[in-house]
Amino acid sequence: MKFVRFTTARHPQGVYGLAHDNGDIEVLKGGLFDAPEPAGETVSPGDIQRYLVPVDPPNILAVGRNYREHAAETDDDLPQAPLLFIKATTSLAAHEDDIVIPAAAPGQVDYEAELVAIIGRTARNVPIETALDYVFGFSCGHDVSARDCQQSDGQWARAKSFDTFAPMGPFVVTGIDVSGLRIRMRVNDECVQDQSTKDMVFNVPYLVSYLSRSTTLLPGTALFTGTPCGVGIARTPPLLLKPGDVCEVDIEGVGVLRNRVVAETQTGAGR
Amino acid sequence: MKFVRFTTARHPQGVYGLAHDNGDIEVLKGGLFDAPEPAGETVSPGDIQRYLVPVDPPNILAVGRNYREHAAETDDDLPQAPLLFIKATTSLAAHEDDIVIPAAAPGQVDYEAELVAIIGRTARNVPIETALDYVFGFSCGHDVSARDCQQSDGQWARAKSFDTFAPMGPFVVTGIDVSGLRIRMRVNDECVQDQSTKDMVFNVPYLVSYLSRSTTLLPGTALFTGTPCGVGIARTPPLLLKPGDVCEVDIEGVGVLRNRVVAETQTGAGR
Repeated sequence: MKFVRFTTARHPQGVYGLAHDNGDIEVLKGGLFDAPEPAGETVSPGDIQRYLVPVDPPNILAVGRNYREHAAETDDDLPQAPLLFIKATTSLAAHEDDIVIPAAAPGQVDYEAELVAIIGRTARNVPIETALDYVFGFSCGHDVSARDCQQSDGQWARAKSFDTFAPMGPFVVTGIDVSGLRIRMRVNDECVQDQSTKDMVFNVPYLVSYLSRSTTLLPGTALFTGTPCGVGIARTPPLLLKPGDVCEVDIEGVGVLRNRVVAETQTGAGR
Repeated sequence: MKFVRFTTARHPQGVYGLAHDNGDIEVLKGGLFDAPEPAGETVSPGDIQRYLVPVDPPNILAVGRNYREHAAETDDDLPQAPLLFIKATTSLAAHEDDIVIPAAAPGQVDYEAELVAIIGRTARNVPIETALDYVFGFSCGHDVSARDCQQSDGQWARAKSFDTFAPMGPFVVTGIDVSGLRIRMRVNDECVQDQSTKDMVFNVPYLVSYLSRSTTLLPGTALFTGTPCGVGIARTPPLLLKPGDVCEVDIEGVGVLRNRVVAETQTGAGR
């Protein structure tokens, strides 16, 4: 099933829907993890005013260097264990929201297409064999990264937590086997990343089990599972994001997440 | 004013109170940031069943190497800019909760006393001069750290995000000048860290302003402002935490945060 969250004229606060193959969206009553039921209303994509981030994650967990060729292109060794970092929840952005190039670090903003696992049940110390039982579904994610900050800080948190640096959506897809999905990033219609999720160093069950031995994974937790090779900073010449660019994360069966890039407009203190 | 959150027999879901110098706690109606009013009930510390983490932070932001002598003891250069990392919100623990030594990394669990700034108003791109206007108050924090994970991962997120690795509380104190407060850590009544917050490399207004240029600081955001020298891993011989230890973060005018250390009991999958 393909869940989506959005606003319409009748639902300005947002609502969940079930997206059908014919384009119809069946409006649902209730939250994503509460077995939502049909509300007796169907809308079309044209009725959508704004897409919303499909979950409200208590934490955004992410792993680095989790595709073999990406680790190679950045001259890094393959990790011996999943390499966790955390993105601030304030960095979330929805499908069709703008990615804002921050005034504080405008020069080296880079793209990273990622498959996102959405936790559906509280997981703590779960074995690999049953780890997928704790995953509700999957979404497209974009781990936007300011390479200059990443390099100068050493720690990646700031570089990857600027506002709008975690686009996610539009769908949460359940009942899908993600062990060999084509994952692509397009920038202005040019395909710049194109690989299969089978090239992950640590697959989703391994990641969920491993991370659950550190931190309780609560429902709604978003787990960004790493990016394939082809990032902008590793290209010759580098391909970095600039205002006007359009990024599309396209994952087979999971959806297309599209965001336009804009420059930060200084709005003064305490907006 | 000294705010505290706790449960009593009459308030099993938890309630805020105002702690007075004579020991009385005036129960309040409403949330911390909504100008809570007296509920007409006074309790004593003996009525408290359990302390609660005083806020529900959307993010726990933290900075590393922010005291001059601590950077020296770990052979690190002083940072040129605040060095951000993020702790998972699932790592929170309240005053008198146990710190659990994780089965996945039991060997090098270390203590770090920290002053925590609690954001009270949404801050984005705020100047240093008015940054304190966005801080509601201050609390005691303990940035528990698994040094072996910190070393092996390079990224600090996992080492500092194990469940219970972010004790915070018991109070949120408003109207206090934190530019020169004595900050101490005691382990089993032995004082192992003892310095002044005036030795911070970047003070609170600087940190708030700087971080607000990256990420919107929402009300409730907890900002751990770094630890003074004296951490366990830098001592000869090292002083690492073990079950039965009692840690006390004591910050002048802000309070004493006490937590006992216990070993993880394996509870099986998906507790």
